[in-house]
Amino acid sequence: MTEVKDYIRTIPDFPHEGILFRDVTTLFASPRGFRMAIDQLLHPYSGMRFDKVVGLEARGFILGGAVAHQLSAGFVPIRKKGKLPAATIGQAYQLEYGEAEVEIHDDAIEPGEKILLVDDLLATGGTAEAGVKLIEKLGGEVIGCAFIVDLPDLGGRAKLESLDMDVHALCVYEGL
Amino acid sequence: MTEVKDYIRTIPDFPHEGILFRDVTTLFASPRGFRMAIDQLLHPYSGMRFDKVVGLEARGFILGGAVAHQLSAGFVPIRKKGKLPAATIGQAYQLEYGEAEVEIHDDAIEPGEKILLVDDLLATGGTAEAGVKLIEKLGGEVIGCAFIVDLPDLGGRAKLESLDMDVHALCVYEGL
Repeated sequence: MTEVKDYIRTIPDFPHEGILFRDVTTLFASPRGFRMAIDQLLHPYSGMRFDKVVGLEARGFILGGAVAHQLSAGFVPIRKKGKLPAATIGQAYQLEYGEAEVEIHDDAIEPGEKILLVDDLLATGGTAEAGVKLIEKLGGEVIGCAFIVDLPDLGGRAKLESLDMDVHALCVYEGL
Repeated sequence: MTEVKDYIRTIPDFPHEGILFRDVTTLFASPRGFRMAIDQLLHPYSGMRFDKVVGLEARGFILGGAVAHQLSAGFVPIRKKGKLPAATIGQAYQLEYGEAEVEIHDDAIEPGEKILLVDDLLATGGTAEAGVKLIEKLGGEVIGCAFIVDLPDLGGRAKLESLDMDVHALCVYEGL
Protein backbone atom coordinates (compact mmCIF):
# COMPACT_ATOMS: atom_id res chain seq x y z
CA MET A 1 0.00 0.00 0.00
CA THR A 2 1.40 3.37 -0.99
CA GLU A 3 2.14 5.62 1.99
CA VAL A 4 2.50 9.42 2.10
CA LYS A 5 6.29 9.09 2.16
CA ASP A 6 6.25 7.10 -1.10
CA TYR A 7 4.80 10.12 -2.91
CA ILE A 8 7.59 12.46 -1.77
CA ARG A 9 10.46 12.89 -4.21
CA THR A 10 14.04 13.52 -3.06
CA ILE A 11 16.10 15.90 -5.18
CA PRO A 12 19.86 16.05 -4.55
CA ASP A 13 21.71 19.39 -4.44
CA PHE A 14 18.67 21.72 -4.31
CA PRO A 15 18.77 24.59 -3.53
CA HIS A 16 22.46 24.13 -2.63
CA GLU A 17 25.03 21.38 -3.21
CA GLY A 18 24.88 18.75 -0.50
CA ILE A 19 21.18 19.30 0.35
CA LEU A 20 18.70 16.46 -0.16
CA PHE A 21 15.52 18.41 -0.93
CA ARG A 22 12.27 16.66 0.05
CA ASP A 23 9.86 17.64 -2.72
CA VAL A 24 6.19 17.44 -1.74
CA THR A 25 4.89 18.63 -5.12
CA THR A 26 4.67 14.99 -6.26
CA LEU A 27 2.56 14.25 -3.17
CA PHE A 28 0.26 17.22 -3.81
CA ALA A 29 -0.10 16.35 -7.53
CA SER A 30 -1.55 12.95 -6.68
CA PRO A 31 -5.29 13.07 -5.86
CA ARG A 32 -4.87 10.13 -3.49
CA GLY A 33 -1.62 11.40 -2.01
CA PHE A 34 -2.98 14.88 -1.36
CA ARG A 35 -6.12 13.56 0.34
CA MET A 36 -4.12 11.08 2.45
CA ALA A 37 -1.78 13.87 3.52
CA ILE A 38 -4.64 16.17 4.62
CA ASP A 39 -6.45 13.34 6.42
CA GLN A 40 -3.33 12.19 8.27
CA LEU A 41 -2.29 15.74 9.06
CA LEU A 42 -5.61 16.30 10.82
CA HIS A 43 -5.83 12.88 12.48
CA PRO A 44 -4.49 14.01 15.91
CA TYR A 45 -6.98 16.90 16.02
CA SER A 46 -10.08 14.83 15.35
CA GLY A 47 -13.16 16.38 16.95
CA MET A 48 -11.30 19.57 17.91
CA ARG A 49 -12.48 22.99 16.81
CA PHE A 50 -10.15 25.51 15.18
CA ASP A 51 -11.03 29.08 14.31
CA LYS A 52 -8.21 29.58 11.85
CA VAL A 53 -5.45 27.78 10.02
CA VAL A 54 -2.26 29.78 9.55
CA GLY A 55 -0.03 28.81 6.61
CA LEU A 56 3.54 29.89 5.97
CA GLU A 57 4.46 31.23 2.50
CA ALA A 58 4.52 29.62 0.01
CA ARG A 59 4.03 25.83 0.11
CA GLY A 60 2.24 26.16 3.44
CA PHE A 61 -0.48 28.03 1.54
CA ILE A 62 -1.34 24.93 -0.53
CA LEU A 63 -1.64 22.75 2.53
CA GLY A 64 -3.22 25.47 4.64
CA GLY A 65 -5.96 26.18 2.11
CA ALA A 66 -6.95 22.52 2.01
CA VAL A 67 -6.73 22.06 5.78
CA ALA A 68 -8.78 25.22 6.49
CA HIS A 69 -11.43 24.03 4.04
CA GLN A 70 -11.54 20.56 5.62
CA LEU A 71 -11.88 22.09 9.13
CA SER A 72 -14.40 24.74 8.02
CA ALA A 73 -11.98 27.28 9.48
CA GLY A 74 -10.63 30.54 8.10
CA PHE A 75 -7.20 30.75 6.51
CA VAL A 76 -4.55 33.34 7.43
CA PRO A 77 -1.26 33.75 5.55
CA ILE A 78 2.10 34.59 7.08
CA ARG A 79 4.17 36.18 4.32
CA LYS A 80 7.64 37.51 3.66
CA LYS A 81 8.06 41.17 4.56
CA GLY A 82 6.30 43.65 2.26
CA LYS A 83 3.84 41.25 0.61
CA LEU A 84 0.73 41.83 2.75
CA PRO A 85 -1.29 44.90 1.74
CA ALA A 86 -2.79 46.10 5.05
CA ALA A 87 -1.30 46.91 8.47
CA THR A 88 0.99 44.14 9.74
CA ILE A 89 3.17 43.09 12.63
CA GLY A 90 6.53 41.47 11.85
CA GLN A 91 8.93 38.98 13.40
CA ALA A 92 12.58 38.50 12.45
CA TYR A 93 14.21 35.06 12.35
CA GLN A 94 17.72 33.74 11.76
CA LEU A 95 18.86 32.43 8.41
CA GLU A 96 22.08 30.48 7.82
CA TYR A 97 23.64 33.83 6.93
CA GLY A 98 21.85 36.91 8.22
CA GLU A 99 18.17 37.21 9.06
CA ALA A 100 14.79 37.67 7.43
CA GLU A 101 11.34 38.80 8.55
CA VAL A 102 7.82 37.46 8.17
CA GLU A 103 4.57 39.36 8.69
CA ILE A 104 0.91 38.81 9.52
CA HIS A 105 -2.00 41.24 9.16
CA ASP A 106 -2.54 42.79 12.58
CA ASP A 107 -6.30 42.13 12.43
CA ALA A 108 -6.08 38.56 11.08
CA ILE A 109 -6.54 36.85 14.45
CA GLU A 110 -8.78 37.76 17.39
CA PRO A 111 -7.63 37.20 20.98
CA GLY A 112 -8.53 33.68 22.15
CA GLU A 113 -8.92 32.16 18.70
CA LYS A 114 -7.72 28.58 18.37
CA ILE A 115 -5.10 28.22 15.65
CA LEU A 116 -3.49 25.38 13.71
CA LEU A 117 -0.14 26.34 12.16
CA VAL A 118 0.77 24.34 9.03
CA ASP A 119 3.71 24.12 6.67
CA ASP A 120 5.04 21.47 4.33
CA LEU A 121 8.42 21.04 6.03
CA LEU A 122 10.00 21.57 9.45
CA ALA A 123 13.75 22.12 9.18
CA THR A 124 15.48 24.65 11.47
CA GLY A 125 12.07 25.87 12.58
CA GLY A 126 12.98 29.53 12.15
CA THR A 127 9.86 30.57 10.22
CA ALA A 128 7.59 28.30 12.27
CA GLU A 129 8.89 29.82 15.51
CA ALA A 130 8.40 33.31 14.07
CA GLY A 131 4.88 32.26 13.07
CA VAL A 132 4.05 31.07 16.58
CA LYS A 133 5.31 34.37 18.02
CA LEU A 134 3.21 36.40 15.57
CA ILE A 135 0.05 34.42 16.35
CA GLU A 136 0.64 34.76 20.09
CA LYS A 137 1.32 38.52 19.78
CA LEU A 138 -2.20 38.83 18.34
CA GLY A 139 -3.61 36.79 21.23
CA GLY A 140 -4.20 33.58 19.29
CA GLU A 141 -3.74 30.19 20.92
CA VAL A 142 -1.60 27.80 18.85
CA ILE A 143 -3.18 24.38 19.45
CA GLY A 144 -0.80 22.54 17.14
CA CYS A 145 1.93 22.84 14.52
CA ALA A 146 1.49 20.32 11.70
CA PHE A 147 3.96 19.45 8.95
CA ILE A 148 4.26 16.88 6.19
CA VAL A 149 8.04 16.48 6.56
CA ASP A 150 10.14 16.72 9.73
CA LEU A 151 13.95 16.92 9.56
CA PRO A 152 14.58 16.60 13.31
CA ASP A 153 18.37 16.82 13.06
CA LEU A 154 18.02 20.44 11.91
CA GLY A 155 16.53 21.30 15.28
CA GLY A 156 13.10 22.66 14.37
CA ARG A 157 11.10 20.15 16.39
CA ALA A 158 13.22 20.78 19.51
CA LYS A 159 12.86 24.55 19.00
CA LEU A 160 9.05 24.38 18.80
CA GLU A 161 8.78 21.93 21.69
CA SER A 162 10.87 24.30 23.83
CA LEU A 163 8.03 26.82 23.25
CA ASP A 164 5.57 24.17 24.57
CA MET A 165 4.22 23.59 21.07
CA ASP A 166 2.57 20.33 20.09
CA VAL A 167 4.36 19.21 16.89
CA HIS A 168 2.85 16.71 14.46
CA ALA A 169 4.62 15.51 11.30
CA LEU A 170 3.81 12.73 8.85
CA CYS A 171 7.25 11.81 7.54
CA VAL A 172 10.50 11.98 9.49
CA TYR A 173 13.85 11.96 7.70
CA GLU A 174 16.92 11.49 9.91
CA GLY A 175 20.24 13.10 8.94
CA LEU A 176 20.96 16.41 7.27
CA MET B 1 -27.04 38.52 3.69
CA THR B 2 -23.28 38.89 3.45
CA GLU B 3 -21.93 38.16 -0.04
CA VAL B 4 -18.41 37.18 -1.08
CA LYS B 5 -17.73 40.75 -2.22
CA ASP B 6 -18.56 42.09 1.24
CA TYR B 7 -15.61 40.15 2.71
CA ILE B 8 -13.11 41.68 0.28
CA ARG B 9 -11.21 44.69 1.58
CA THR B 10 -10.05 47.48 -0.70
CA ILE B 11 -6.69 49.07 0.11
CA PRO B 12 -5.76 52.31 -1.63
CA ASP B 13 -2.26 52.87 -3.02
CA PHE B 14 -0.95 49.29 -2.73
CA PRO B 15 1.46 48.23 -4.12
CA HIS B 16 1.73 51.58 -5.94
CA GLU B 17 0.06 54.98 -5.59
CA GLY B 18 -3.21 55.12 -7.48
CA ILE B 19 -3.92 51.37 -7.29
CA LEU B 20 -7.02 50.15 -5.44
CA PHE B 21 -5.82 46.76 -4.18
CA ARG B 22 -8.59 44.14 -3.74
CA ASP B 23 -7.47 42.22 -0.65
CA VAL B 24 -8.93 38.71 -0.41
CA THR B 25 -7.15 37.87 2.87
CA THR B 26 -10.19 39.13 4.79
CA LEU B 27 -12.37 36.77 2.73
CA PHE B 28 -10.06 33.81 3.38
CA ALA B 29 -9.80 34.60 7.12
CA SER B 30 -13.56 34.21 7.53
CA PRO B 31 -14.68 30.57 7.87
CA ARG B 32 -17.99 31.42 6.20
CA GLY B 33 -16.42 33.64 3.55
CA PHE B 34 -13.79 31.08 2.61
CA ARG B 35 -16.33 28.27 2.26
CA MET B 36 -18.72 30.48 0.25
CA ALA B 37 -15.88 31.45 -2.07
CA ILE B 38 -14.86 27.82 -2.73
CA ASP B 39 -18.47 26.71 -3.22
CA GLN B 40 -19.27 29.56 -5.64
CA LEU B 41 -15.97 29.14 -7.47
CA LEU B 42 -16.88 25.53 -8.22
CA HIS B 43 -20.56 26.11 -8.93
CA PRO B 44 -20.24 26.20 -12.77
CA TYR B 45 -18.27 22.94 -12.76
CA SER B 46 -20.78 20.94 -10.73
CA GLY B 47 -20.64 17.24 -11.64
CA MET B 48 -17.52 17.65 -13.79
CA ARG B 49 -14.38 15.67 -13.15
CA PHE B 50 -10.96 17.32 -12.90
CA ASP B 51 -7.65 15.50 -12.61
CA LYS B 52 -5.71 18.47 -11.30
CA VAL B 53 -6.08 22.00 -10.04
CA VAL B 54 -3.27 24.36 -11.02
CA GLY B 55 -2.66 27.36 -8.75
CA LEU B 56 -0.57 30.42 -9.49
CA GLU B 57 1.96 31.57 -6.86
CA ALA B 58 1.29 32.72 -4.19
CA ARG B 59 -2.36 33.52 -3.30
CA GLY B 60 -3.54 31.03 -5.93
CA PHE B 61 -1.97 28.34 -3.74
CA ILE B 62 -4.41 29.04 -0.88
CA LEU B 63 -7.42 28.83 -3.15
CA GLY B 64 -5.96 25.99 -5.23
CA GLY B 65 -5.27 23.80 -2.21
CA ALA B 66 -8.86 24.15 -1.00
CA VAL B 67 -10.36 23.67 -4.46
CA ALA B 68 -8.23 20.58 -5.20
CA HIS B 69 -9.27 19.10 -1.86
CA GLN B 70 -12.94 19.81 -2.53
CA LEU B 71 -12.71 18.21 -6.00
CA SER B 72 -10.59 15.25 -4.81
CA ALA B 73 -8.08 16.30 -7.46
CA GLY B 74 -4.32 16.74 -7.30
CA PHE B 75 -2.74 20.19 -6.91
CA VAL B 76 0.04 21.52 -9.15
CA PRO B 77 1.84 24.82 -8.48
CA ILE B 78 3.03 27.28 -11.11
CA ARG B 79 5.86 29.25 -9.55
CA LYS B 80 8.19 32.11 -10.26
CA LYS B 81 11.40 31.07 -12.03
CA GLY B 82 13.90 29.15 -9.90
CA LYS B 83 11.55 28.07 -7.11
CA LEU B 84 10.63 24.55 -8.27
CA PRO B 85 13.21 21.89 -7.39
CA ALA B 86 12.92 19.38 -10.27
CA ALA B 87 13.01 19.73 -14.08
CA THR B 88 10.69 22.48 -15.34
CA ILE B 89 9.41 24.19 -18.45
CA GLY B 90 9.05 27.98 -18.39
CA GLN B 91 6.93 30.67 -19.99
CA ALA B 92 7.73 34.38 -20.12
CA TYR B 93 5.04 37.05 -19.77
CA GLN B 94 4.92 40.83 -19.98
CA LEU B 95 5.02 43.07 -16.94
CA GLU B 96 4.27 46.78 -16.94
CA TYR B 97 8.02 47.30 -17.30
CA GLY B 98 9.99 44.34 -18.65
CA GLU B 99 9.06 40.69 -18.39
CA ALA B 100 9.07 37.79 -15.94
CA GLU B 101 8.86 34.01 -16.19
CA VAL B 102 6.82 31.32 -14.48
CA GLU B 103 7.55 27.59 -14.40
CA ILE B 104 5.85 24.23 -13.95
CA HIS B 105 7.43 20.83 -13.26
CA ASP B 106 7.67 19.07 -16.61
CA ASP B 107 6.13 15.87 -15.18
CA ALA B 108 3.33 17.56 -13.21
CA ILE B 109 0.60 16.98 -15.81
CA GLU B 110 -0.05 13.97 -18.06
CA PRO B 111 -1.35 14.43 -21.61
CA GLY B 112 -5.15 14.52 -21.64
CA GLU B 113 -5.61 15.43 -18.00
CA LYS B 114 -8.47 17.81 -17.27
CA ILE B 115 -7.30 20.94 -15.47
CA LEU B 116 -8.89 23.79 -13.54
CA LEU B 117 -6.66 26.88 -13.31
CA VAL B 118 -7.29 29.07 -10.26
CA ASP B 119 -6.00 32.34 -8.92
CA ASP B 120 -7.38 34.96 -6.58
CA LEU B 121 -7.41 37.83 -9.07
CA LEU B 122 -7.54 38.35 -12.84
CA ALA B 123 -5.97 41.67 -13.86
CA THR B 124 -3.90 41.89 -17.05
CA GLY B 125 -4.01 38.11 -17.31
CA GLY B 126 -0.28 37.82 -17.98
CA THR B 127 0.44 35.04 -15.50
CA ALA B 128 -2.86 33.26 -16.18
CA GLU B 129 -2.11 33.24 -19.93
CA ALA B 130 1.40 31.93 -19.21
CA GLY B 131 -0.18 29.27 -16.98
CA VAL B 132 -2.56 28.15 -19.72
CA LYS B 133 0.35 27.87 -22.16
CA LEU B 134 2.41 25.80 -19.71
CA ILE B 135 -0.47 23.41 -19.03
CA GLU B 136 -1.14 23.02 -22.76
CA LYS B 137 2.56 22.44 -23.51
CA LEU B 138 2.37 19.44 -21.18
CA GLY B 139 -0.74 18.18 -22.98
CA GLY B 140 -3.23 19.14 -20.29
CA GLU B 141 -6.72 20.35 -21.20
CA VAL B 142 -7.73 23.56 -19.41
CA ILE B 143 -11.46 23.14 -18.73
CA GLY B 144 -11.81 26.43 -16.90
CA CYS B 145 -10.03 29.42 -15.37
CA ALA B 146 -11.60 30.49 -12.07
CA PHE B 147 -10.91 33.65 -10.07
CA ILE B 148 -12.35 35.39 -7.04
CA VAL B 149 -11.84 38.89 -8.45
CA ASP B 150 -12.01 40.05 -12.08
CA LEU B 151 -10.80 43.51 -13.13
CA PRO B 152 -12.06 43.36 -16.72
CA ASP B 153 -10.81 46.82 -17.67
CA LEU B 154 -7.24 45.54 -17.30
CA GLY B 155 -7.85 43.13 -20.17
CA GLY B 156 -7.22 39.74 -18.58
CA ARG B 157 -10.65 38.30 -19.30
CA ALA B 158 -10.45 39.34 -22.96
CA LYS B 159 -6.94 37.88 -23.22
CA LEU B 160 -8.03 34.48 -21.84
CA GLU B 161 -11.23 34.42 -23.90
CA SER B 162 -9.15 35.07 -27.03
CA LEU B 163 -7.42 31.75 -26.18
CA ASP B 164 -10.89 30.10 -26.08
CA MET B 165 -10.73 29.83 -22.32
CA ASP B 166 -13.83 29.62 -20.17
CA VAL B 167 -13.43 32.34 -17.51
CA HIS B 168 -15.38 32.33 -14.24
CA ALA B 169 -15.06 35.06 -11.59
CA LEU B 170 -17.08 35.78 -8.46
CA CYS B 171 -16.62 39.54 -8.08
CA VAL B 172 -16.20 42.01 -10.91
CA TYR B 173 -14.79 45.49 -10.28
CA GLU B 174 -15.11 47.95 -13.15
CA GLY B 175 -12.50 50.66 -13.59
CA LEU B 176 -8.74 50.60 -13.04
